[in-house]
Amino acid sequence: MSIKFNSVLENIKSYEAGKPIELVVREFGIAPERVVKLASNENPIGTSPAVAQTIRDSATKAHLYPDDSFFQLKEALAKKFEVESNNIIIGAGSDQVLEFISRAVLDENSSVLMSAVTFAMYEIYAKQMGATILRTPSYQHKVDEFISEYQKYKPKIIYLCTPNNPTGDGMRRDDVFKIIEAVGSDTLIVVDGAYMEYAKAKDIEYSLEPKDIMNYPNVIYLGTFSKAYGLGGMRVGYGIANPALIEQLYKMRPPFNISSLSLASAIVACGDDEFVAESIALHTEQIKRYEEFATSQGFEYIDSYTNFITYIFDDSMDSSYISDELLKRGVIIRNLASYGMNAIRITVGTPKQNDIFFDNFLLV
Amino acid sequence: MSIKFNSVLENIKSYEAGKPIELVVREFGIAPERVVKLASNENPIGTSPAVAQTIRDSATKAHLYPDDSFFQLKEALAKKFEVESNNIIIGAGSDQVLEFISRAVLDENSSVLMSAVTFAMYEIYAKQMGATILRTPSYQHKVDEFISEYQKYKPKIIYLCTPNNPTGDGMRRDDVFKIIEAVGSDTLIVVDGAYMEYAKAKDIEYSLEPKDIMNYPNVIYLGTFSKAYGLGGMRVGYGIANPALIEQLYKMRPPFNISSLSLASAIVACGDDEFVAESIALHTEQIKRYEEFATSQGFEYIDSYTNFITYIFDDSMDSSYISDELLKRGVIIRNLASYGMNAIRITVGTPKQNDIFFDNFLLV
Repeated sequence: MSIKFNSVLENIKSYEAGKPIELVVREFGIAPERVVKLASNENPIGTSPAVAQTIRDSATKAHLYPDDSFFQLKEALAKKFEVESNNIIIGAGSDQVLEFISRAVLDENSSVLMSAVTFAMYEIYAKQMGATILRTPSYQHKVDEFISEYQKYKPKIIYLCTPNNPTGDGMRRDDVFKIIEAVGSDTLIVVDGAYMEYAKAKDIEYSLEPKDIMNYPNVIYLGTFSKAYGLGGMRVGYGIANPALIEQLYKMRPPFNISSLSLASAIVACGDDEFVAESIALHTEQIKRYEEFATSQGFEYIDSYTNFITYIFDDSMDSSYISDELLKRGVIIRNLASYGMNAIRITVGTPKQNDIFFDNFLLV
Repeated sequence: MSIKFNSVLENIKSYEAGKPIELVVREFGIAPERVVKLASNENPIGTSPAVAQTIRDSATKAHLYPDDSFFQLKEALAKKFEVESNNIIIGAGSDQVLEFISRAVLDENSSVLMSAVTFAMYEIYAKQMGATILRTPSYQHKVDEFISEYQKYKPKIIYLCTPNNPTGDGMRRDDVFKIIEAVGSDTLIVVDGAYMEYAKAKDIEYSLEPKDIMNYPNVIYLGTFSKAYGLGGMRVGYGIANPALIEQLYKMRPPFNISSLSLASAIVACGDDEFVAESIALHTEQIKRYEEFATSQGFEYIDSYTNFITYIFDDSMDSSYISDELLKRGVIIRNLASYGMNAIRITVGTPKQNDIFFDNFLLV
């Protein structure tokens, strides 16, 4: 006899993370300084100086557990979003809030609904609970498709990833509300705004605020410090919803689920609007180069509301071949073949990183 | 209608973390420098200088995700423990490895076995899966009690917390093996060695190495960087077991489950034997003061194999009253009343912190 594992484990595939620079260095023998990583939607301008200073100041406190109530961080977020502390749950990235949600409401008899191509963790966490995955036909979040699938299957959770990762397209605010209004209050709607800061800067009609949707008893907003705030490595995200929902999710939260330094960093990042503005300004300028490059090369791109852009190829080009060839040259981007698309996703980088991408793309 | 949560949530109580210094400052208006926290078994000598330097050096890399394979950290641990990288899984604290285990094997029809008083997260994670909690009559890990309960109920998991938290007593190595040998290979045995470095320094017969037990297909060893290595705030722990077991647990691991700075810190801490030796030397010297203090005051203590000591009171003293009075004076210790013991657990601190504890205890 041996250990019997839960049957859900049989169907689980792990998340495929963007290849780290270290791995490319190890596998292809390329010097670290020659490797350009545009695969994980990290903030290209780096860590905010205020956060870096906080980390240095906290360096001798690594032995101390964080304040497990996350009092200061929740106060800072409450102020920023004009909500109360009891509307907020903190996760190790918004990923972990997705995990709490999945564990709190799903089981083997439930289903979840998402768009055809969207953030991979929705499926992974739902499968860990044995739930059935339903997808709309389109990668875009089309209102009619969501409502029609909802009516047919009455899923336990609907994921609205807006703007959407890994495609970059966004939902209009009024389309989000159309779905919310059409869905019964026993279905939880997750509005994942991981890239919302970029959408808001591009077109306010494609953005929404947590407080706009928080009064629905069955809607939760997710946000993260990993993108516009430049804390990808620190793993801090949040969920904002009515207190009754937050209270239930809290039961799935492990103690000390973010580190002391992550907590200190997020508190400072929360007030660092200047850094966010600077990140978005650079992005807005640089993404135009990617749009122009695609047009000049004769292939399509998806109009992006995020910090990355997705190039879609026709049959004359192969996203796997292109990704592999770029990788050998030290340029890491995300191949979307595993999502069923002949497409690549590129994080918009610094001017220099983008130069290197364009130069190498032309050599492939 | 409203969201229906999974029924297991009804029975979940959250972990009660040691009160943070910030909370005592807020609630009792005591200046932070006058608050002494001896409640969370943090390393009193602080953060290792080598780790602090690594954190400072990494401060501008907070925007970059960690290498999700944790390649370097697993290599360092493999070398330290004379095992292979594929024997290792990394968690956000060993807590998170407990969570992976619970989720991989438990369901509502299974039971888990632990001692009467032991680490609270075993119960919390098992309850999240709806499992039944079984406890031996004694707080000590008594071989006969474990074997007899095992034979009666055939639990899916047996937790051996050695040395045990929150009591401090340890198991003899040969007693661990007696239990392993008596248990069928379809029951998973978790040997939680969070405080093993202290046990090893005190009496080698009360310690064991991961490699001693790793070849059993149904045994996993857990360790942490939170105690002797001084990284409590960074949330890094590990599980060591045979590759087949590790592979299953990996299916429950979320990507990037420790932060970039936690990863960098743990890699350095792993080689910092000098810091561990220094921590243990101070502890060995200071714990004698706690033993002598108890004897001089006429109450009992549990012989400790950890970095804390547990005082047990008779009816003339009340652990809740004592804890509350100490708290008002800015001394945070752990009251064990919620574990059903008229006892307090005190982390052995620096000489100065211990002075403050003794002085205030005499005033209560």
